[in-house]
Amino acid sequence: MKVAVLGATGVVGRTMLTVLEARGFPVDELVPLASDRSAGSHVSWRGHDWPVGTASARSFDGCALALFSAGAERSREWAPRAAEAGAVVVDNSSAWRLDERVPLVVPEVNGSEAGNRPLGIIANPNCAAIQLVIALEALRRAAGLRRVVATTLQSVSGAGQAGLDALRAEQAGGDAADSPFVARIAGNVVPWIGARAGDGWNEEETKVRSETRRILALPALPVSVTCVRVPVEVGHSVAASIETERPLSVDQAAEALRAMAGVVYCDASRDPTPRDVAGTDDVRVGRLRSDPDSPNLLHLWVVSDNLRKGAATNAVQIAERVLSG
Amino acid sequence: MKVAVLGATGVVGRTMLTVLEARGFPVDELVPLASDRSAGSHVSWRGHDWPVGTASARSFDGCALALFSAGAERSREWAPRAAEAGAVVVDNSSAWRLDERVPLVVPEVNGSEAGNRPLGIIANPNCAAIQLVIALEALRRAAGLRRVVATTLQSVSGAGQAGLDALRAEQAGGDAADSPFVARIAGNVVPWIGARAGDGWNEEETKVRSETRRILALPALPVSVTCVRVPVEVGHSVAASIETERPLSVDQAAEALRAMAGVVYCDASRDPTPRDVAGTDDVRVGRLRSDPDSPNLLHLWVVSDNLRKGAATNAVQIAERVLSG
Repeated sequence: MKVAVLGATGVVGRTMLTVLEARGFPVDELVPLASDRSAGSHVSWRGHDWPVGTASARSFDGCALALFSAGAERSREWAPRAAEAGAVVVDNSSAWRLDERVPLVVPEVNGSEAGNRPLGIIANPNCAAIQLVIALEALRRAAGLRRVVATTLQSVSGAGQAGLDALRAEQAGGDAADSPFVARIAGNVVPWIGARAGDGWNEEETKVRSETRRILALPALPVSVTCVRVPVEVGHSVAASIETERPLSVDQAAEALRAMAGVVYCDASRDPTPRDVAGTDDVRVGRLRSDPDSPNLLHLWVVSDNLRKGAATNAVQIAERVLSG
Repeated sequence: MKVAVLGATGVVGRTMLTVLEARGFPVDELVPLASDRSAGSHVSWRGHDWPVGTASARSFDGCALALFSAGAERSREWAPRAAEAGAVVVDNSSAWRLDERVPLVVPEVNGSEAGNRPLGIIANPNCAAIQLVIALEALRRAAGLRRVVATTLQSVSGAGQAGLDALRAEQAGGDAADSPFVARIAGNVVPWIGARAGDGWNEEETKVRSETRRILALPALPVSVTCVRVPVEVGHSVAASIETERPLSVDQAAEALRAMAGVVYCDASRDPTPRDVAGTDDVRVGRLRSDPDSPNLLHLWVVSDNLRKGAATNAVQIAERVLSG
């Protein structure tokens, strides 16, 4: 099988290559594609050096699969062409996520949607949405969902290599001239991810809300999320308060979380942190508590590697689902 | 006036000295007290070196005021003795905060309570509670309060010098042998502050809930807080979702916050971060948003220097109130 990876030299693209290899994805020929800046270089994968090209009209010929992680603009341009060439496109950008003709898939939650792809494109959700929605789905199955309020603590790698570079430059005592953040991030937390809309909500907050509702197929579910950047290299955390339709005890909720595919439930003896999950495919859920004032309200803490399950791993899992189905 | 400072060599104690000097508090004689470890050293204050002693039966003789920041155990032991010696004790530990004979005071919110102190002791609230309650009071005055759900992002100086030392040692590439944190904090976030109770809530979370209710004199207000330690040296942040009794627009809420003493309201052009407030006495409130699904729900972001307004400044403001009243 011939597989193209657009954005192969970026942080998520490199992680896609790692995950494809680790999971033994049946690739015969790899087509790594990147921007002009990286074209002509090589990526090392499965013991071979593969030349990096730029996307062109012929790039996707013969590809059964194209994994995209090169930003929304390039996805809008190239995803239809790759699909036309016969590839199934799994796109990690925000370009197609709210397009009704494109399924938005977290395999553990709505994997069967991957089969319904009239444009030949499947969208990979926002990183914070993926880990949140997996925890929500577990509770939905047990007791229904009435409202979600959450705060995310998102690592700098969510802003790609530029985010990692900015944190490292600042931590080394310098300034990060090309920082993607609106304020210094080393030794700080910054409540701003994505562009600001007129109503005060940031783009990332709107994405998590819209995508969570769409993945769960609960288009009217109240979801309000405050997104904060923190000086962590890899691993997003979400503190979520979840109102269920029916009362749910901590024991019942823990049972539902343990039964959920993709979730590693952590009891009070081990609180998950970003450092624990970096490099893994786990969605770890801990700090499960009953609200002291409402039997329908639970509080919990979800951490996951934003480059793995929050991006590359989820995309590869979607591709595996397409292959198998 | 003779003023004792117990815990004068700790992070909060040193900040108390800074704040006393900056605000021109009328001290004639300073009595810095600390543990055996620091006794015999000096603190430099107002251009003089003051010898550091240990607390004894005679330490508080003639003191009109005693500022305590030496932990709950030493407060339980020494606060009654200092009060008996005639000093008004303003105590920064958790020892007396829920004692009905001891007022728990944030001057902007319930300053008049400082006059009702049958034990001669006034309690200074938890750092995160102080900044949260000031924002809540503003909204309460405008529309009443029905429920509060919040996530705190708390700096390492909340754990004193040991917290600062641990972060710095880890950031320098080492391990922090005496770290007060349950996991590595550099490059990480840790959802654990204070001891864990059997119901899954941590001590810090229970403190913020109980103290917020007590300061606001709303003993049944639903308040649920998840407390997280972040790798920031100074400055706590709180992401709060606040349900009001009556609908409140963003404009109305902003007006209420602007009218609130102690609050610096930040519009969308400047999101406050911990780095912005470190070294100031501000409680900055920003990221004010209406919930898209409920007219009674607002979301906002509150940052403040946990050593200043969250501890030393609030204590000195209480002392000023006692003097003036």
